[in-house]
Amino acid sequence: MCAVPTDLSTSTSSDTDLAAEERALASEYAALQERGLKLDLTRGKPSPEQLDLSNGLEKALDGADLASGGADARNYGGLDGLPAARRLGADLLGVDAAEVIAGGNASLTFMYQYLLNAWLNGPLGPETAWRRETAQPRFLCVVPGYDRHFTITESLGFEMLNVRMLDSGPDMDEVERLVAGDSSIKGIWCVPKYQNPTGHTFTDDTVRRLARLGSIAGPNFRIMWDNAYAVHDLYDDPPVLLDLMECCRAEGTADSAVMFASTSKITRAGAGVAFMAASPGNLAQFRKHLGVQTIGPDKVNQLRHVNFLRDIDGIRALMRRHAAIMRPKFERVLSFLDAGLAGRAQWTRPRGGYFISVDVAPGTAREVVRLAAGAGVKLTPAGATFPYGRDPDDANIRLAPSYATLDEIDQAMPVFVIAVRLAAVRRRQHR
Amino acid sequence: MCAVPTDLSTSTSSDTDLAAEERALASEYAALQERGLKLDLTRGKPSPEQLDLSNGLEKALDGADLASGGADARNYGGLDGLPAARRLGADLLGVDAAEVIAGGNASLTFMYQYLLNAWLNGPLGPETAWRRETAQPRFLCVVPGYDRHFTITESLGFEMLNVRMLDSGPDMDEVERLVAGDSSIKGIWCVPKYQNPTGHTFTDDTVRRLARLGSIAGPNFRIMWDNAYAVHDLYDDPPVLLDLMECCRAEGTADSAVMFASTSKITRAGAGVAFMAASPGNLAQFRKHLGVQTIGPDKVNQLRHVNFLRDIDGIRALMRRHAAIMRPKFERVLSFLDAGLAGRAQWTRPRGGYFISVDVAPGTAREVVRLAAGAGVKLTPAGATFPYGRDPDDANIRLAPSYATLDEIDQAMPVFVIAVRLAAVRRRQHR
Repeated sequence: MCAVPTDLSTSTSSDTDLAAEERALASEYAALQERGLKLDLTRGKPSPEQLDLSNGLEKALDGADLASGGADARNYGGLDGLPAARRLGADLLGVDAAEVIAGGNASLTFMYQYLLNAWLNGPLGPETAWRRETAQPRFLCVVPGYDRHFTITESLGFEMLNVRMLDSGPDMDEVERLVAGDSSIKGIWCVPKYQNPTGHTFTDDTVRRLARLGSIAGPNFRIMWDNAYAVHDLYDDPPVLLDLMECCRAEGTADSAVMFASTSKITRAGAGVAFMAASPGNLAQFRKHLGVQTIGPDKVNQLRHVNFLRDIDGIRALMRRHAAIMRPKFERVLSFLDAGLAGRAQWTRPRGGYFISVDVAPGTAREVVRLAAGAGVKLTPAGATFPYGRDPDDANIRLAPSYATLDEIDQAMPVFVIAVRLAAVRRRQHR
Repeated sequence: MCAVPTDLSTSTSSDTDLAAEERALASEYAALQERGLKLDLTRGKPSPEQLDLSNGLEKALDGADLASGGADARNYGGLDGLPAARRLGADLLGVDAAEVIAGGNASLTFMYQYLLNAWLNGPLGPETAWRRETAQPRFLCVVPGYDRHFTITESLGFEMLNVRMLDSGPDMDEVERLVAGDSSIKGIWCVPKYQNPTGHTFTDDTVRRLARLGSIAGPNFRIMWDNAYAVHDLYDDPPVLLDLMECCRAEGTADSAVMFASTSKITRAGAGVAFMAASPGNLAQFRKHLGVQTIGPDKVNQLRHVNFLRDIDGIRALMRRHAAIMRPKFERVLSFLDAGLAGRAQWTRPRGGYFISVDVAPGTAREVVRLAAGAGVKLTPAGATFPYGRDPDDANIRLAPSYATLDEIDQAMPVFVIAVRLAAVRRRQHR
C-alpha cells in the first residue's frame, strides 16, 4: 500500500470493448441487487462469537476479595486505576506499570483528554499550552488512517496535514521535513502495529526515526501512539514492534511518546479497560486534568479484567482464540480480492489487526461504496480514512472482515468485486 | 445555615476565665491526643456495609440476554446508553427517557464535558460558544457548596461568584440581581436536594425562580442541577423537590436546565452509572461533543444495573436499606454536636444526603481542622466548601458521617467538639 495505482487496467480497450464490459458487469450487478442483501462491512467490531470468548468476565469476581487491590474496588478513588490493572496495561504496551494509567472503557477518551489537556493546560504545565501559541496547532495524520483520530484533531481546531503510510510506516522523510520546518506541528498520530487500515507494522528504522522527532521538533511535540492492535495477531509468527518508549529514552525524548491501548478488542468492545502510558512529567500534568473530571475509573471492571485475563500469557492465549475466528475471515476476503480484482486494485495482506485496505481505481472509491450500498452491502464511507473525509485520490476503501460471518462475506464480497470493476469501467468510459 | 454566627459565646468572659477555660480544654485535648486515634471524616464515601447492599450486581447478568437492550451490550455503540438505563435515569431525575443520556461511572465527568462543550463548542452550536464572548465567563457558586464543582469551574477559567445558601436554597434575591446586571454570568451550580454540605432542599419558590432565570439571563445561561441525592432520604417523610424541567418548560426556558444524577451512592461509588438530562437542543449539541471522545458507555454495567435495580421502586427499596445504616450515624454525630457545642457553633440537621454543615466561630475553622488532625481525626479541609478554597469567614466545616462506623464516630466526635471549643477560646484570648 505504498503508492496509489495510477492505472489499474491491464490493457487498453476500445470504446466498444468497454461498453461490452460495462454491460456485462451492470448485468451481474443487477443480478446481485436482486438478492436483496443487507450486509455490513463497515466498522471494526468484534463478532458475537469473539465476544463470547470473554463471557467468563461475569464469573471473574465470584468469591473475589474486592479490596484485594489495596483499596475497595467498589468505592471512590484511585485516579490511576488499580495497580494490577496498570500492570496489565504495562504488559500490553511494553512499559513500566508506573508509566501507566488504567481508565474506563475507551482509550479514545484518553486520547481526547490528552490532546485537550495539551491544548488547554499544556502537556507539561500552563506555559506549554498549545493554545497560547500564536500559530494554530497542526497535526500530522498518516493516511490512510483512523477516522476517529482525525475527528478528535479536527474538533480541537488543529489543522491536519497528510503523510503517506508506506509499507514501513509513515513516510519518515516527509515527516522529518515537515517537522523541521514548522514549529506549529504539535504531533503525529500513529497506529504502529497492524495499522488501521493497512495492517502494516512500523519497521525498527521507522520507530527509531520517530523517537528522534522530539529532538527535531522540540519538547512540545507528541507522538500519539495508539497501539490498539498490540496483541491482535492472526498468525503465530507476528511482527515485533520496536519499543518506542525505550528508543525515546535513549534519545532523551521520552516526553514525546504518549501510548494508548485497551482491552476493547481483547474482551468486550464497549466494556473493556483502557490504558495510557507516558513519561512521569506527562502523567503528572495529565493527572491534574483527569482529576478535575473524575474521582477515578471503574475499578470493579478493572478487577474483573485482572482476574479474568491474569497476565500477558492469559491475554495471548485469548488472542489465539480470536485469531482462530478472525483468520478465516481475512483469508476469505483476500481470496475474493485475489480472484476478482487482480490487476484491477491493490490491497494489503494484514498479519493482524482489524482491517484490509483496498485502493481501487483513482476517482472511483465513492462510486464503489455507492454501488455496494445499492446492492445491500454497507462499506465504510470512501474518504473516511483521510482527514476531513477527503481522499485526494478517491481511491481508498477500508474493509472490516471481523463482524460478518463467513457466509456473509461470501455474499458481500462478490458485490464489492463487481462494484469495483463496474465503477472502474464506467470511469474509463467517461475519460 | 442561613447566616454565619457573629459571636457564638453565650456570655462574655474575663481574661482569667478564658485562660482557665483554655487550660481545661487544652488538657482534655492532650488526653484525646494520647489515644493515638486515626480516623477520617472527610469525604462522602459510602461505607463497606452500604456497598455490600449491591453485591448482587455481580449476579445480575447470570443467564441474562446481553442483547436484550436491542443491541449487544458488550459491543461498540449506543452513545446515549441503553434505553433501559436511560429510563432508570429518567425515573431518578423525574424527566422523560428521551431527555436522558446514560453514561459511565461518574456524573462529574458529564458535568465537566457539558461545561467544556458549552465553552469550546457552544451549548447550542458554535455561535453560542462561551469562549467567543469578549468577557471571561462567570459562574455562580452556592456557598457552602461542593468543592469538585468549583474545581471544574476554575479549571475552565471561569470566574466564580459566591451566593449564600439559605435554608430555602440559594439566595435568589442575590442571584436575580447578579444575573440581571451581568451577561457574562453563564450559569449556577445547584445541588437541589439535600444540598452538599448543608443538607437543605430547595423550596418550590426557589425552583420556580431558578426556572425564570433563563428569561432574565438569556438563552446562554445554564443551571447545573446536580441532583446527586435525589433518592437519598434518611427518613420516611422526605421533602419533595419541585420538577425544574417542568417549571422551565412552563417558562419557555427548558434549554437552561441541565440535570445530573448517578447510582454512585445507590450501588457502587466508583462503578455505578451516571445520567444527564437536558432539552433536545442541548442534547443534540452535546452528543456531537461526546461522540468525538467515545463510541459509547459501558453498556454491560448499565445492563447489570438495570437488572439489579429494576425500576424506581427497586431503587427506593435499596435506599431504605442505606438509610437504616446512615440514619444512626447522622443522629450520633448530631447528638455530639447538641451535647457539646450548643451555643458555640451552628449546624444543619439534614433529612438526607451525605453531609452535615457546621459553622464554628468565625476565624477558627482552619484551626479546628488543624487541631482535630493533631489528635488523629481527619476533617475536610476548611475552605473546601468555598470557591478557590477561601471561606471569607473561615467558619464552615463539612462533616461526612457515612464512612465511619458508629464506634469511630464515638471516638472522633469528642475530638471535634474539643477542637471547636479550644479554637474558639484561643481566638477570644487573642482578640
